[in-house]
Amino acid sequence: MTHSAGEGLFSGMFARGGASAEVTDAAWLAAMLDVEAALAAAQAGIGLVPAGVPAALEKACRPELYDVAGLSTAAARSGNPVIPLVAALRERVDPGLRRFVHYGATSQDVNDTAAMLVAGRALAPILADLSACAGACARLADRHRGTAMAGRTVLQHAVPVTFGLKAALWLSALDGARTHLAGLLPLPVQYGGAAGTLSVLGGRGHEVLPRLAAELGLAEPVVPWHTDRAPVARLACALGTAAGTLGKVATDVKLLAQTEVAEVAEPAEPGRGGSSAMPHKRNPVGAMSVLACVQRVPGLVGSVLAGMVQEHERAAGPWQAEWETLGELLRLTGSAASWLREVLEGLTVDADRMRANLGATRGLLMAEQVVSRLGGTPQARRVVDAACARAADGGLALREVLLADPAVPLEPEEIDAALDPAGYLGSAAVFVDRALTAHENTVGADR
Amino acid sequence: MTHSAGEGLFSGMFARGGASAEVTDAAWLAAMLDVEAALAAAQAGIGLVPAGVPAALEKACRPELYDVAGLSTAAARSGNPVIPLVAALRERVDPGLRRFVHYGATSQDVNDTAAMLVAGRALAPILADLSACAGACARLADRHRGTAMAGRTVLQHAVPVTFGLKAALWLSALDGARTHLAGLLPLPVQYGGAAGTLSVLGGRGHEVLPRLAAELGLAEPVVPWHTDRAPVARLACALGTAAGTLGKVATDVKLLAQTEVAEVAEPAEPGRGGSSAMPHKRNPVGAMSVLACVQRVPGLVGSVLAGMVQEHERAAGPWQAEWETLGELLRLTGSAASWLREVLEGLTVDADRMRANLGATRGLLMAEQVVSRLGGTPQARRVVDAACARAADGGLALREVLLADPAVPLEPEEIDAALDPAGYLGSAAVFVDRALTAHENTVGADR
Amino acid sequence: MTHSAGEGLFSGMFARGGASAEVTDAAWLAAMLDVEAALAAAQAGIGLVPAGVPAALEKACRPELYDVAGLSTAAARSGNPVIPLVAALRERVDPGLRRFVHYGATSQDVNDTAAMLVAGRALAPILADLSACAGACARLADRHRGTAMAGRTVLQHAVPVTFGLKAALWLSALDGARTHLAGLLPLPVQYGGAAGTLSVLGGRGHEVLPRLAAELGLAEPVVPWHTDRAPVARLACALGTAAGTLGKVATDVKLLAQTEVAEVAEPAEPGRGGSSAMPHKRNPVGAMSVLACVQRVPGLVGSVLAGMVQEHERAAGPWQAEWETLGELLRLTGSAASWLREVLEGLTVDADRMRANLGATRGLLMAEQVVSRLGGTPQARRVVDAACARAADGGLALREVLLADPAVPLEPEEIDAALDPAGYLGSAAVFVDRALTAHENTVGADR
Amino acid sequence: MTHSAGEGLFSGMFARGGASAEVTDAAWLAAMLDVEAALAAAQAGIGLVPAGVPAALEKACRPELYDVAGLSTAAARSGNPVIPLVAALRERVDPGLRRFVHYGATSQDVNDTAAMLVAGRALAPILADLSACAGACARLADRHRGTAMAGRTVLQHAVPVTFGLKAALWLSALDGARTHLAGLLPLPVQYGGAAGTLSVLGGRGHEVLPRLAAELGLAEPVVPWHTDRAPVARLACALGTAAGTLGKVATDVKLLAQTEVAEVAEPAEPGRGGSSAMPHKRNPVGAMSVLACVQRVPGLVGSVLAGMVQEHERAAGPWQAEWETLGELLRLTGSAASWLREVLEGLTVDADRMRANLGATRGLLMAEQVVSRLGGTPQARRVVDAACARAADGGLALREVLLADPAVPLEPEEIDAALDPAGYLGSAAVFVDRALTAHENTVGADR
Repeated sequence: MTHSAGEGLFSGMFARGGASAEVTDAAWLAAMLDVEAALAAAQAGIGLVPAGVPAALEKACRPELYDVAGLSTAAARSGNPVIPLVAALRERVDPGLRRFVHYGATSQDVNDTAAMLVAGRALAPILADLSACAGACARLADRHRGTAMAGRTVLQHAVPVTFGLKAALWLSALDGARTHLAGLLPLPVQYGGAAGTLSVLGGRGHEVLPRLAAELGLAEPVVPWHTDRAPVARLACALGTAAGTLGKVATDVKLLAQTEVAEVAEPAEPGRGGSSAMPHKRNPVGAMSVLACVQRVPGLVGSVLAGMVQEHERAAGPWQAEWETLGELLRLTGSAASWLREVLEGLTVDADRMRANLGATRGLLMAEQVVSRLGGTPQARRVVDAACARAADGGLALREVLLADPAVPLEPEEIDAALDPAGYLGSAAVFVDRALTAHENTVGADR
Repeated sequence: MTHSAGEGLFSGMFARGGASAEVTDAAWLAAMLDVEAALAAAQAGIGLVPAGVPAALEKACRPELYDVAGLSTAAARSGNPVIPLVAALRERVDPGLRRFVHYGATSQDVNDTAAMLVAGRALAPILADLSACAGACARLADRHRGTAMAGRTVLQHAVPVTFGLKAALWLSALDGARTHLAGLLPLPVQYGGAAGTLSVLGGRGHEVLPRLAAELGLAEPVVPWHTDRAPVARLACALGTAAGTLGKVATDVKLLAQTEVAEVAEPAEPGRGGSSAMPHKRNPVGAMSVLACVQRVPGLVGSVLAGMVQEHERAAGPWQAEWETLGELLRLTGSAASWLREVLEGLTVDADRMRANLGATRGLLMAEQVVSRLGGTPQARRVVDAACARAADGGLALREVLLADPAVPLEPEEIDAALDPAGYLGSAAVFVDRALTAHENTVGADR
Repeated sequence: MTHSAGEGLFSGMFARGGASAEVTDAAWLAAMLDVEAALAAAQAGIGLVPAGVPAALEKACRPELYDVAGLSTAAARSGNPVIPLVAALRERVDPGLRRFVHYGATSQDVNDTAAMLVAGRALAPILADLSACAGACARLADRHRGTAMAGRTVLQHAVPVTFGLKAALWLSALDGARTHLAGLLPLPVQYGGAAGTLSVLGGRGHEVLPRLAAELGLAEPVVPWHTDRAPVARLACALGTAAGTLGKVATDVKLLAQTEVAEVAEPAEPGRGGSSAMPHKRNPVGAMSVLACVQRVPGLVGSVLAGMVQEHERAAGPWQAEWETLGELLRLTGSAASWLREVLEGLTVDADRMRANLGATRGLLMAEQVVSRLGGTPQARRVVDAACARAADGGLALREVLLADPAVPLEPEEIDAALDPAGYLGSAAVFVDRALTAHENTVGADR
Repeated sequence: MTHSAGEGLFSGMFARGGASAEVTDAAWLAAMLDVEAALAAAQAGIGLVPAGVPAALEKACRPELYDVAGLSTAAARSGNPVIPLVAALRERVDPGLRRFVHYGATSQDVNDTAAMLVAGRALAPILADLSACAGACARLADRHRGTAMAGRTVLQHAVPVTFGLKAALWLSALDGARTHLAGLLPLPVQYGGAAGTLSVLGGRGHEVLPRLAAELGLAEPVVPWHTDRAPVARLACALGTAAGTLGKVATDVKLLAQTEVAEVAEPAEPGRGGSSAMPHKRNPVGAMSVLACVQRVPGLVGSVLAGMVQEHERAAGPWQAEWETLGELLRLTGSAASWLREVLEGLTVDADRMRANLGATRGLLMAEQVVSRLGGTPQARRVVDAACARAADGGLALREVLLADPAVPLEPEEIDAALDPAGYLGSAAVFVDRALTAHENTVGADR
């Protein structure tokens, strides 16, 4: 549902950030009027309409002249809001020029092009928030390059990693999401007339296409794409993939912020993350809000993909179903990006707690390295398996078990070295550098 | 996005009917206040709060006293709108009684119970529109019991059916959708306190449950269901199934209204179904709008189901993701039901055109009956297959081909009988009667 | 993809339990043959086919006589496997009786009825596994009625609960899932002939319906439901809801089994949950497998719902899309149920660790009760808020902070009582009893 | 469910084309073995393993040496099939070299890299079929550049188009789908060890990455992407978008092949598109099969996107859920592409019927041009609206109504010109040329 930005009961969670304001009814209306005005300008440029038309349209295409509620009522009868909008627009133009309003266009031309404008405008703050998220991750990766913590697979301690490496994966994923979304720009203009032939313009309609695209900062398509919905599907998919990436980072934050783990904390401020019942609660509302937004995205992407199966020259249902869905995708992905930005820019990292948690298994997560030090053979693996089992069953430190095991031909200092997380970080620092370098290149390419 | 009903640019299509007004922010706020007031009443009834609390709450729980925009801003910090609402509510109650506002409750208790109230209230107009749809189908089935038309499988003419039988399938499906949705009522109340123990009330919290349910006309659950989301999932699924049924009927209408088929037409009114480019267009905007709404539903149901995987005693994201999604499901299914009601109540049926279209294959769709009249054997099938092929290839009437075929030992009048659609309707009329009787029983059960 | 049960590379995870064997190609073939045989028996019962037909069909309808690969090749040309199957079946019947094979039926009749048989047969082990899951939860709820643990909301410690209460919510949800699924049985038979009129049988086709249903243990529908897909949609939805419930329980197990939480452990056996790299790993493979299965379900349900929009008397695509999807839903939900059964029946619960973790916040999770003991007023809340903040910031025990706080007029023993989790469990035990009683009633109703 | 290609009961519909054989269990097993062999080669290249290891692995990594069923049973206990595969592989290697099998790798490294190999191999036939589809469309567009037909919006006649323009939109969309999918290649290798640090290899693990990628023809990622699932999500999305495009074309074919429209027909061959009940049926089984496949895709894409939210260094469920889902996406999209190729390469186009259908509205679909000829003013529109209404209501030809209308100041020959579809095709031919040129460039770029 398009709406006025930021004023709904649940908008704090789902309409945060700049995208929300770009998908309101007012934003759609403004975009539709921009299309009508640009069409006149493009057509006047090649003499298809009288020279006075662009000025007349520019004057008439001011959103404040039109009433959304009234258009809505009429739109229900006609099946889309462009029909009543064009009628209202013509009322504001000199009668002699009225036939050149919306000239040669069909409702879908205006609706689709407006959708591309709306999407492009909403993407700007989303890309900015993704950049800021990536920037925050780059700082975390750089700062915590050497901060050892437990690597966790299937939610169990695995081997040591660094928080820098974790942030580097976030960084790499966020950079990818941003690059992929930005790569869709500029989105294509739509202009084909009633059934894609631009018949009203005789044989010159296609000459309007590049000029219309240039007026609006959009791309020129090969042919009118009325029922080829790939541009919308690709946009929906890129938003869905970006949302999934935002959700991955938020999942890690949520898990690291658990009471029993407590390795990171979201930024604190009065009233943030409180509970109506429990005075002590400091909920990770940022990660929670990211995840609430992200949870809703895959179903919407599926809707857009399912709706690609559109009939003939204009579909009866699936096309119309895109309108609000696209707005929701932009709003929710944008809100998630804005929330995650706040989380990452203010994230508190507790390196001491990370170090303490590394010891939670009393050395077991170093077992892989002990196998390596014993030669990495299947036989070594069996010996260490058995030692791990004894340590786990008896609540013992792996160090003690290994020291006592005659099958372990290592000196105490060798055992200590094998059990030192800092000595078992492999290429973690190299991967951090690679992610930072790639990020720098991405940022540089944008400049 | 919850919103004010009916005023959005695309609301004419997606927010038609009565459900839309029941899922606005104002409706949510009213429901939340109803819950707080009912909680006080239920608790006073068993002496858990002072006798003056219900009256104080009743006075304070008037929606016009609260500002949605302000609650929204605060809700973003706390993670849900109940926390700031309770704070605002307490401001309007005598200080000595403030501790008994929202007594023993957690935000989710209020949000979930309000969601059930919102859903129950939105279901009323949906059920009414489904009933009206079914009623219209019953009339169509009854009236067109004997109106023969082409049965179409895989969009090809198959054998004759009657329009009455088609309407009977619609009727049976719509009755099923309505019965299934109505069977979910009353929806369950939620009340478990911070983590499901109602600890603040000592050992008496569970005594509040039946009274709170009774106050609100909701059902009493076995246990607080904070992270058992089956009640919401079942509701979403029933809405999704109802929407699918509405879409099936609209699909048939859309296809029957095609220019080349022209067997039904949607109700005409000035401005309805017009085009901004083409003066002659009379689009089936009703069926199109049903299908536009319905297209968006399965993804939303998938979202709710995917969100059932909720953590511990309250989830971080999936729960919150339900709020707007549930509203969308009610709004869209309601809008589809309202649109289809208009379509069905005003549907024009062209029995002459149906009869004419029956002849489109020059007798081919009667081939099955010819096989029967020839004994139904594989040999008979081969003979008729060959005759059909000759008729199809040569653009001939099947009658002429059969008459000329020495392998067809039938008299001309036998061939005519075999090719008469009216004589090949099987149990169509019986099935119409069965659907009408079942409908009567359904309607009777509701009285 | 239907397949031979249990032999695929990923089958261990996704095809565990008894449902998998009921959705293989062999099971579909057997069900299709059962339908053809039952049809003959039902028709012979009312004299529509010669008395010898049922015996002939019974003899011919043995699955071992037919070759799935050959049927598959032919099915691709015809669009469904019933057409070549009927041809092969006729080959095995006396020529004089061949016309009574598949008499009056269309492919969809056989395919749909076989689907209902397949589903019914696959539901039996799913219901049994759900029952076993519920039984295990009932035992856990009963045994751990008094085992206090941290209640966790938004993955943060909230207030104390009991493990019994957590198991009671699981129990209640699992009982609901089972009851809901079982309530769909018996599923409806399909029999309408080429376009729903049963025209081949003259006016007597509808008399076959109740007999065919009885032969197969299925329900009799009001009308043939060829393009009313609600029976399939409701089944898909109930499976989706059951899967969501299984996923909720697995989520809790996964989180409780985390290295840092360690309150439960999955059953251990050699080779279970190991790692190719790390000797010490004991992964919660059961919960992981449940979640892997469950993750795939909502998209499949969405597919079925989206496919309800079926054209006229038989759809071109959406109907066919159901076949494998329904099998996948049964296989995956069944596998999840079987995995969870193993997890729950062998779950190790560490009550000591639960108690220890209750202290992780040094008393903070008892803050709500301290507010209560101080009168529950907003003023009391402010005092406790401040004490919690001091305790959290200083790493102090809440007890010490409260003792030192002049604004807290409680004696040490009162503070100790306020901070005792065992004294703050509210109605937890009552809710356990309610869930157990409801479970007993459910089980009793099944006997 | 991975499976042996082409042998299932429903495989004719859902496993057509070359992709199916690339996603079987056998194909997965072969890919996993390829990864293990390539890893050894890459590591030997920089001296990390003894020189004899690659040869030993090459010998052991032959798929015929391993038993899928046995691996499956063991995989269920360990949670993935790589663990038992590595164990079996080691058995076939000289004991002294066993520790260098799967050296430094974790199961996910092998599973993910194998998935990328499987996907890349399955994409080859999909891309080839998409190319063939586009080629067929190019021929249709070229041949039918001037074949006028009714343009249809909302399934109603709108204005004339050409079949060439319709084919040009198909062409442009199919080229886009192919380019987009091909642009994902090469897919990235995965190699990070237990938790992404490659700790077993000391500090040299990252040196293996480019060599491993080169060995396998895959791309080198910036960092190990264990829980950054964007590569899989983008692949799923591109398949989903391609499937939607295939479905759009099939929808048009399905609608054009309707009995009442009959403008195209699918290729005929004995047994293709027949019915078990009706001898005359020639169903568009190709379009139907495309749509059956495509119907199932959006839900699967949604599953992949929803599963991106993966925990820490390896997820407990969502990762595993990708395995079969990715195979299904490749199989179904591939099957749809293969079916559509057959449809398009053999499509019969009935230009006469297209011309005849253009007259179905007795001139109404030329109304837009009449408005243009009358000056295109709102006044002209009102005159033509009224004329259309009279023609429609009275079953009259628009020509007669216009001739008789004093408000229409046109000569008969002007009216005839205004009503001539061939004179109202706008830029249709230009757009055909643009699509053909773009296609040539695409094809040229591939050479």
